[in-house]
Amino acid sequence: MGTNTDRRTGLLTRFRHVRSLTESIASPLTDEDQCAQSMPDASPVKWHRAHTTWFFEAFVLDAFAPRYQPIDDRYSYLFNSYYDAVGDRHPRPERGLQTRPTCAEVAAYRAHVDAAMIELLETSDDDALAAIEDLVVLGLHHEQQHQELALMDVKHLFSRNGCWDPAYRTSHPEVRRQQPPPLGWVEIAGGLIDIGHDLSMGFAFDNEQPRHTTLLDSFRLANRLTTCREWQAFIDDDGYSRPELWLSDGWFTAQRERWQAPLYWQADGDSWTTLTLDGRRPIVDSEPVVHVSHYEADAFARWSGGRLPTEFEWEAAASPHRVAGNLLTDPDRSPLHPTTADVHDPGLRQLFGDVWEWTASAYLPYPKFRTADGAVGDYNGKFMSGQMVLRGGSAITPVDHVRSSYRNFFAPSARWMFSGVRLAADA
Amino acid sequence: MGTNTDRRTGLLTRFRHVRSLTESIASPLTDEDQCAQSMPDASPVKWHRAHTTWFFEAFVLDAFAPRYQPIDDRYSYLFNSYYDAVGDRHPRPERGLQTRPTCAEVAAYRAHVDAAMIELLETSDDDALAAIEDLVVLGLHHEQQHQELALMDVKHLFSRNGCWDPAYRTSHPEVRRQQPPPLGWVEIAGGLIDIGHDLSMGFAFDNEQPRHTTLLDSFRLANRLTTCREWQAFIDDDGYSRPELWLSDGWFTAQRERWQAPLYWQADGDSWTTLTLDGRRPIVDSEPVVHVSHYEADAFARWSGGRLPTEFEWEAAASPHRVAGNLLTDPDRSPLHPTTADVHDPGLRQLFGDVWEWTASAYLPYPKFRTADGAVGDYNGKFMSGQMVLRGGSAITPVDHVRSSYRNFFAPSARWMFSGVRLAADA
Amino acid sequence: MGTNTDRRTGLLTRFRHVRSLTESIASPLTDEDQCAQSMPDASPVKWHRAHTTWFFEAFVLDAFAPRYQPIDDRYSYLFNSYYDAVGDRHPRPERGLQTRPTCAEVAAYRAHVDAAMIELLETSDDDALAAIEDLVVLGLHHEQQHQELALMDVKHLFSRNGCWDPAYRTSHPEVRRQQPPPLGWVEIAGGLIDIGHDLSMGFAFDNEQPRHTTLLDSFRLANRLTTCREWQAFIDDDGYSRPELWLSDGWFTAQRERWQAPLYWQADGDSWTTLTLDGRRPIVDSEPVVHVSHYEADAFARWSGGRLPTEFEWEAAASPHRVAGNLLTDPDRSPLHPTTADVHDPGLRQLFGDVWEWTASAYLPYPKFRTADGAVGDYNGKFMSGQMVLRGGSAITPVDHVRSSYRNFFAPSARWMFSGVRLAADA
Amino acid sequence: MGTNTDRRTGLLTRFRHVRSLTESIASPLTDEDQCAQSMPDASPVKWHRAHTTWFFEAFVLDAFAPRYQPIDDRYSYLFNSYYDAVGDRHPRPERGLQTRPTCAEVAAYRAHVDAAMIELLETSDDDALAAIEDLVVLGLHHEQQHQELALMDVKHLFSRNGCWDPAYRTSHPEVRRQQPPPLGWVEIAGGLIDIGHDLSMGFAFDNEQPRHTTLLDSFRLANRLTTCREWQAFIDDDGYSRPELWLSDGWFTAQRERWQAPLYWQADGDSWTTLTLDGRRPIVDSEPVVHVSHYEADAFARWSGGRLPTEFEWEAAASPHRVAGNLLTDPDRSPLHPTTADVHDPGLRQLFGDVWEWTASAYLPYPKFRTADGAVGDYNGKFMSGQMVLRGGSAITPVDHVRSSYRNFFAPSARWMFSGVRLAADA
Repeated sequence: MGTNTDRRTGLLTRFRHVRSLTESIASPLTDEDQCAQSMPDASPVKWHRAHTTWFFEAFVLDAFAPRYQPIDDRYSYLFNSYYDAVGDRHPRPERGLQTRPTCAEVAAYRAHVDAAMIELLETSDDDALAAIEDLVVLGLHHEQQHQELALMDVKHLFSRNGCWDPAYRTSHPEVRRQQPPPLGWVEIAGGLIDIGHDLSMGFAFDNEQPRHTTLLDSFRLANRLTTCREWQAFIDDDGYSRPELWLSDGWFTAQRERWQAPLYWQADGDSWTTLTLDGRRPIVDSEPVVHVSHYEADAFARWSGGRLPTEFEWEAAASPHRVAGNLLTDPDRSPLHPTTADVHDPGLRQLFGDVWEWTASAYLPYPKFRTADGAVGDYNGKFMSGQMVLRGGSAITPVDHVRSSYRNFFAPSARWMFSGVRLAADA
Repeated sequence: MGTNTDRRTGLLTRFRHVRSLTESIASPLTDEDQCAQSMPDASPVKWHRAHTTWFFEAFVLDAFAPRYQPIDDRYSYLFNSYYDAVGDRHPRPERGLQTRPTCAEVAAYRAHVDAAMIELLETSDDDALAAIEDLVVLGLHHEQQHQELALMDVKHLFSRNGCWDPAYRTSHPEVRRQQPPPLGWVEIAGGLIDIGHDLSMGFAFDNEQPRHTTLLDSFRLANRLTTCREWQAFIDDDGYSRPELWLSDGWFTAQRERWQAPLYWQADGDSWTTLTLDGRRPIVDSEPVVHVSHYEADAFARWSGGRLPTEFEWEAAASPHRVAGNLLTDPDRSPLHPTTADVHDPGLRQLFGDVWEWTASAYLPYPKFRTADGAVGDYNGKFMSGQMVLRGGSAITPVDHVRSSYRNFFAPSARWMFSGVRLAADA
Repeated sequence: MGTNTDRRTGLLTRFRHVRSLTESIASPLTDEDQCAQSMPDASPVKWHRAHTTWFFEAFVLDAFAPRYQPIDDRYSYLFNSYYDAVGDRHPRPERGLQTRPTCAEVAAYRAHVDAAMIELLETSDDDALAAIEDLVVLGLHHEQQHQELALMDVKHLFSRNGCWDPAYRTSHPEVRRQQPPPLGWVEIAGGLIDIGHDLSMGFAFDNEQPRHTTLLDSFRLANRLTTCREWQAFIDDDGYSRPELWLSDGWFTAQRERWQAPLYWQADGDSWTTLTLDGRRPIVDSEPVVHVSHYEADAFARWSGGRLPTEFEWEAAASPHRVAGNLLTDPDRSPLHPTTADVHDPGLRQLFGDVWEWTASAYLPYPKFRTADGAVGDYNGKFMSGQMVLRGGSAITPVDHVRSSYRNFFAPSARWMFSGVRLAADA
Repeated sequence: MGTNTDRRTGLLTRFRHVRSLTESIASPLTDEDQCAQSMPDASPVKWHRAHTTWFFEAFVLDAFAPRYQPIDDRYSYLFNSYYDAVGDRHPRPERGLQTRPTCAEVAAYRAHVDAAMIELLETSDDDALAAIEDLVVLGLHHEQQHQELALMDVKHLFSRNGCWDPAYRTSHPEVRRQQPPPLGWVEIAGGLIDIGHDLSMGFAFDNEQPRHTTLLDSFRLANRLTTCREWQAFIDDDGYSRPELWLSDGWFTAQRERWQAPLYWQADGDSWTTLTLDGRRPIVDSEPVVHVSHYEADAFARWSGGRLPTEFEWEAAASPHRVAGNLLTDPDRSPLHPTTADVHDPGLRQLFGDVWEWTASAYLPYPKFRTADGAVGDYNGKFMSGQMVLRGGSAITPVDHVRSSYRNFFAPSARWMFSGVRLAADA
């Protein structure tokens, strides 16, 4: 009983924390800021606030709280992004035209659902609580994803405001400013490596599963992220004008979009400025480069003589227990075995929470991947086409939302997420 | 002096009236409503409020009020729609992304400029007042145009809100509800007709000038506007599916856009509803059809066996003194002469202030048309390509902004203005 | 009877002449040249050859030659451009994909229809001949239009051949090379002018009718066409970079299409070359500028301080009997009357058969314009939207296909026809 | 020396064979057929003939035949597809506008290069021959790829000919007609599997290398290809209308393109016809379905309860020596070892030369993949983005151009190649 009470308390605490963080993220924004949509890939902050709320209403309250009354029946249509049948939903590129419900009405919607959820969590008996716990946890992780998306989308929106560069906030630096070490290489021994989430370790999305073994060659990984200074060297060496450095699709995209530098960089005489959530400011040479596409990351890696790591290499390097257990019983038996000595190498810096690191891996299902039943099962699988995996989390990722098995994914042309580069090389 | 005082007072009264009407129009709207832009042809209401203010700042205060200090130097860039050089201005399709300045800041901008303008109008000596009077009047007529545009744009925006049909207001019907008479024809005698604004009659835009004489054949004009009932008959007779009724460009557009009815009409079983500023409601059969393109108006006219009037025919029918004076000296001499008996025929109803009436005339300069010098001269001339003329004003046109010589103009595919049809025929 | 025999002989002679000229025009082209389509507005030469043949089959043979057997039933579908119902016809932009029927098969189609037509013309009795004569004449004028289109389309196709600039022919200069006189102005008196074709004068298209009277102010017309030298001065004076010279749509188009000079001009160091049907060669300063859009023509005219003439001004200046007859009885009675002295002023050069001259007139129906019944009636009316009128004919217009009332029309952005400029000004 | 003579003779024989096969493939086509380009992804047959010739000119003759004189210097520009710098080359979507050089001129170009190549191969001393042999072999494999592309492109072109369905040939069925066995499953044991080309086995493209070991789970593979009958069941079960079966991008594409069936299928009452190189004919139920996209293949597999195989699973199943050698020394030691008994299981039919089989694998470089130096090295690597791997070859793949390690690749939306489906499942 003590355990159940703890679980209930923990769940309530986490629910309140995540839900209120979303409101904190929105709070510096005006109603206009929250309603606008700067491109089809982005969504208004107001929509993020409502859509994450809809998740709890649709998957928890409607199913498990029999007396729950929606505050407005139209919301289940307006804030549902899950069903793709043509004509069913408000078209995604027009979310910015949805001036109603207003921000105030969305706040009321959140409060209404929060009250019902908290009542449900407080009053359900243990069996009922157990039945909804996984859905609630999924809903909170889902909301954390949208917290990061909301900040990405606000930054992009502010970049289109014309001569005016609004600052989202002034107190909180976007990227941790630490002087990086000189570029060095950490060698990681190959072997049969377990990849994917170990379910005994807590929550993971479906796309991190099932855990399985893969075979890796030994490889080297840069000890830190690529810096703005290094990226300027790429620019200065005509990196954006040499097709031989680029994937064919990347070159085509770079030409069509007239890319000359990372997103948000602007030439200011001989130097560069960039847009941050704190406003526009000069590039800091030692900071990790951010807002580059996969195409640019790949071209940069080729120019530098290296390559991007695969997502399995990255996870192998970032995991504390990355070695396939069944081979560890007799470490002398095979040259394939890594030794534990290089596990979690302290030489690897900036692995988590700086910038998302592009990998060389397409976003595809792991062997024996299965989607869950029902609409929730739609979660990740249907996006496993045309996208590349990023790892590690960024400075705007909620801090308890990153893990070594976490797979983020975006189209190779996308740049508005906080994406950067860590170089790899063959051993 | 009395006259000058009267002029000053009149100008101040008119300035205050027009400026405050704009704010009244915006007042039912939330900040989100005022910021969104539903299509490239539309603008946010916030932008309309700011752009009309910029006009007075740029053309009056900057030139004639030496001590005037702008509230923000960036506004002259953000709210200028006049100069088209590529890259100079915030791109028009992205006005809805301009969440800053906020609605509150725009209100402050308006108050700042209003105060400076009122001070200037109150304190200028008579010569100075005379120097700016024409510009101020032009600015007020410009603002009245944007008052109508703002309502068109809000209506379009609300139509894209998804399942939700917001009502802009509830008290004020969009179109005057009067039972129209049976369709009848008024015959207008042809002759040499004076067209264009007589400058002794008050303000007119440059495109209504110069007044000149044109030769018209006798013709017939419908005594009232085409009704929704008549339009439904066109729909029921497959009017939207018969290419032989349509101009080639019109047919192509109707197919591409899948037009089946006027804009905002939705089939609801066997009947139709439409969106109004008061919300969605059933079609009223006797009301004038509204929100049809020139292409549809032309196809409807062909289907009905008639045609659209030319803008000169319309103006001849609508003008109290439309007969060319120099030929009236001997009305018996030529069959071309109209008699005064048919001038301003009382049989013609709904000429002003119901819906804009599409004409068969392309929007082109009148003979000897000259643009004014400078940027203000850019006003109308550069749009004289690819558009068709509409006459008469609509229910949302400010009541003192309509006159028989007024030329409105839109692309033949546009439907979001309050546009309808009056049939014409050869005599 | 003698007359009827002459008519029959004349019709046969004309039929043979026009039909064989089409084949002569195609003869320098390879099968590949005849099949390709360089843009949606253009058609393959093979299609022009077949479509003009289909006209005789569909409108004459199918209706009047009971024993006529089509060579292939599919041709009536493939080569019909007249009916616009969606899905009915091969899509126009894909005409170049129609590799079958081959050029040889199209030649056989032409021979098959020619034989049937000649037999019909030779063997019909007089009444039957009278019944088809107008259709045959219309078909021949239709074919002459396509002769010019074929040459326009070949020239455009050859311009897209890459580094290779094929020459269509070598012996026949594209534009008559004559030293033009210095630019001068011919003043034309205004008045009530008869416009449109006098049917006693032979064939005319429906859009040149009905003849009617219009009122013109006196005006001035340049004595010759604008030259390449003058156009270079416009370029050198940054004419393509100054938005104040351009219509709004024109400026937008010029920016989007990156216009810097007339179509086919290429900068070669400090000078320019152009593509002609004889291949690429340097610009000749004294030649009329050709391949400019209405937008460019209008901007050039504004830059030069003049304007484009209206189509009525042009026709008034170009017509031998342009004065409204009913006013000529007493030339002293009104200052509006022109005198016969300025009719057909010898000072006006290059009026016919040099380049099509853009006018300031939108392509709209004349008063009381009526389309003919049936599909043939579809001829011109449905294109009366969004286009501007050109007058005078070009060097590639069949010589007996030009007259003062002839109205050619193209979109204001089109440049691939042989279009140039004659300046006008108010008197 | 005998060996060298044999190599020389073999190379000459192969050169003559491949080069003449290209001409045989083109021979049923008219000049028009060979010049047209039906979409940007396709190329004219004439271009394929010239581009494959340019390869020998640019990479062999220009480098190794000092006295070689090009027949036309412009060809090196026109027929080079390798360098992507903007503006350098004729734009790919406009290859169909290149009516010059003509088919006859391209034939002369081929003969000119063939003569020079044969002279070079016949007269080079052994060292010189050794220096060019790899390039010549690469050029011949390159030409074989274009032989298949030419047939794909012709088929697509003929599908756009309107009501006319030309037949490319009549004697040679497109797909081998054999009665397939009932659908069954072959289980393949997992383990450490060697993937990629063993260079001792002859030619392979760079993308098949380096050979490396991967770890596979046991899996099952369908004993034959998916048939048209099975695909019709998918259609009849609303497979094209159920978004839950589709990848998100796939659903979006299917809706936008209005896919209802494989490419070239047309509903004919209750049954279907398809276009083949032999013309249009009814679907044959027992034939493999062909011309489906990866998106459709993936949706079909999900609907059927299976999945697509990875490219490694496919290669493991299709390779005669697929088992990692170093593990075969003691087959009892690990459950991962497959036994040789299931190698090349006779139960697997239609593996090679029927239709290309979509895999679940993105087209990415193998570990330690390196491109060759210089322009030839550009061969495959730059396309390793956004595409999916297909295996096995189709009925139009040259018979000596297929091998178990061969990786074909196309965008997941592409359908004009001869692509089909073999189902897989977890063991």
